[in-house]
Amino acid sequence: MTISAFNPPARVLLGPGPSEVPARVLLAMAKPTIGHMDPAFIGMMEEVKTLLQYAFQTTNAATLPISAPGSAGMEACLANLIEPGDKVAVCRNGVFGGRMGDIVERLGGVPLWVDNAFGEAVDPDKLADALKKTRDVRLVAFVHAETSTGVLSDARAIAEVAHRFGALVLADTVTAIGGVPLYVDKWELDVAYAGTQKCLSCPPGLAPLTLSERALHRIRNRRDKPRTWFLDLSLLLGYWGTGKRVYHHTAPINLLYGLHEALRMLEEEGIENAWQRHRRIHEALVVGLEPLGLGISVAPDIRLPQLNSVSIPAGVDDAQVRARLLEEWGIEIGGGLGELAGRIWRIGLMGQGSNIRNVTLCLDALKVALGTALIEKDLDAKAVPT
Amino acid sequence: MTISAFNPPARVLLGPGPSEVPARVLLAMAKPTIGHMDPAFIGMMEEVKTLLQYAFQTTNAATLPISAPGSAGMEACLANLIEPGDKVAVCRNGVFGGRMGDIVERLGGVPLWVDNAFGEAVDPDKLADALKKTRDVRLVAFVHAETSTGVLSDARAIAEVAHRFGALVLADTVTAIGGVPLYVDKWELDVAYAGTQKCLSCPPGLAPLTLSERALHRIRNRRDKPRTWFLDLSLLLGYWGTGKRVYHHTAPINLLYGLHEALRMLEEEGIENAWQRHRRIHEALVVGLEPLGLGISVAPDIRLPQLNSVSIPAGVDDAQVRARLLEEWGIEIGGGLGELAGRIWRIGLMGQGSNIRNVTLCLDALKVALGTALIEKDLDAKAVPT
Repeated sequence: MTISAFNPPARVLLGPGPSEVPARVLLAMAKPTIGHMDPAFIGMMEEVKTLLQYAFQTTNAATLPISAPGSAGMEACLANLIEPGDKVAVCRNGVFGGRMGDIVERLGGVPLWVDNAFGEAVDPDKLADALKKTRDVRLVAFVHAETSTGVLSDARAIAEVAHRFGALVLADTVTAIGGVPLYVDKWELDVAYAGTQKCLSCPPGLAPLTLSERALHRIRNRRDKPRTWFLDLSLLLGYWGTGKRVYHHTAPINLLYGLHEALRMLEEEGIENAWQRHRRIHEALVVGLEPLGLGISVAPDIRLPQLNSVSIPAGVDDAQVRARLLEEWGIEIGGGLGELAGRIWRIGLMGQGSNIRNVTLCLDALKVALGTALIEKDLDAKAVPT
Repeated sequence: MTISAFNPPARVLLGPGPSEVPARVLLAMAKPTIGHMDPAFIGMMEEVKTLLQYAFQTTNAATLPISAPGSAGMEACLANLIEPGDKVAVCRNGVFGGRMGDIVERLGGVPLWVDNAFGEAVDPDKLADALKKTRDVRLVAFVHAETSTGVLSDARAIAEVAHRFGALVLADTVTAIGGVPLYVDKWELDVAYAGTQKCLSCPPGLAPLTLSERALHRIRNRRDKPRTWFLDLSLLLGYWGTGKRVYHHTAPINLLYGLHEALRMLEEEGIENAWQRHRRIHEALVVGLEPLGLGISVAPDIRLPQLNSVSIPAGVDDAQVRARLLEEWGIEIGGGLGELAGRIWRIGLMGQGSNIRNVTLCLDALKVALGTALIEKDLDAKAVPT
């Protein structure tokens, strides 16, 4: 067996995540590993919590990163908040809403689907209608920034409807955090979880989450333990708490070094500045796409600046263009997921990757790749049949 | 808010894990992040699987790392193998056996406890007696190397008993892998999971696991989906499989770079050589402890070479000695867990940290710290009562 050292090829990450990780964050992860119960490490954990409160715009004491990727954050929130038989309104306007419903069912919950088409935002009025018809819904779950479609939903309005009907509200902010305005406290989001590998510019592997007092109250009053030990938030809060820490699992030390540094960068820039930058860079992309005959597939008022869904023109081979960008330019963009496969590209301008260099580079590469694709199509059409 | 860059203090990691991570592995993690569906990354995933097969000494195709720490590996195996109502024999001779039983209960399984005292090995005869009395046990779970006590159990004998009674066998090899002989195929272990932060010399955050055909057959024939989406092995095998990969979650790219490099180091040394090194270095520690009046609390034939349980002499303040080692020497050793708290120290000589430099350093530090502790005790005794 001869397996060589792995040297990743040069890539420009303009897909749906992971996004470009700055050298500062990469180098932070290469600092020596220390013990997960070391007083110095525990001090750093406190700082990570404080920085995450800033990223979520919350004062929730129960704000911490789960030791696994964003989808484990989704499962952690649902597994702790839902008890068997609970009705959960699941707003589905993309792949990730569907995943939430899958988890609700596995946990013995009863999903009440509130559907909007892929590419539309969650409609708060539709949610209100559903909650009017079905009583005793305990939780409303929705995706703030749908990574599969590039659509932003109105988190504040959804939370307001949920509360009007006595339900708690859970927001998937995996792609939202750091890229678009997100105010957990002001909007009264009871629970939110996120990912690190999108607008926080950190490698994947951690899922920050935050729980309001209302959510904690529900967790404390469960009839039974959650069906998971690894994601049992009562145990995790004992490990991440401010009192005497109770050993739970071994935290991913070096990944947390990286998150600490990435969150410091967000705080240095200022979160409002980061939101505005994502908006400005998105607008530059849209302006540049037009002369290429390309447009965003999502209506202007609900577009995600950090994840741009571009309609693939008729006759253009999705996979071929993406392969060309990757192989010739080292540029990764995303294809469509689920029913949008082959119909859209997803261009991510996330975190530190949201900058003008990446916009112009992406436009240049698309211009060449599309031009070549159209020329080849033309040649095919003219070819003499054999 | 002013939060400075985190610079970990200089530490020598001689506790129960994480262990020392070589610079090669730290630097591998600092290589640029690429996409988790990038062909180059997928090639690396294949190499990680091959290297893990070597570490587990198996040809199981279903060998992959879970994207979360070792305890998530435990939960993944149990959540996929157990269905509600299943009887599971849980061998408990330390904290981690107890944890397995907790998870079995959360999953709706029925634990049949097979207890040995903390500090003893699992007794295969006791297991056989239990399986004789209680019929239809579907799974036997045990810890190969108990991290809480420093005890090695006879995995081959336990597997033989389990199979005699028609049960599958699940081994926790978190601390075992890379440090003591482990032959998944030869010993017919149906399922095993491990951690990266012990004898593999990698930071925490991943849980390698391996599943035999018998285990896969049981998973394929479940009545219902597992109660977890994140740890659903059927979905994970689709993501890590050799055919067309199905997107599941975003793998922790940079941690996997680290694991790849750490496993390469294991393969370069040769796994038998690594096992022998752990044994030799352990013997050097034992010889050096004796003149200090210190001894291993575990019987010679069941001692873990990579995790040495040292009895704390009467009158010595556990916490004070460990604090002194940490603050004055930068050395981390472990205290006892559960009922062994205050009664033992756990000295880890794991992975690349298993070397003669660490043995002599640890002995010197203990000599000074113990001498000081005894002098202070003496002074206290002589002090004139006020």
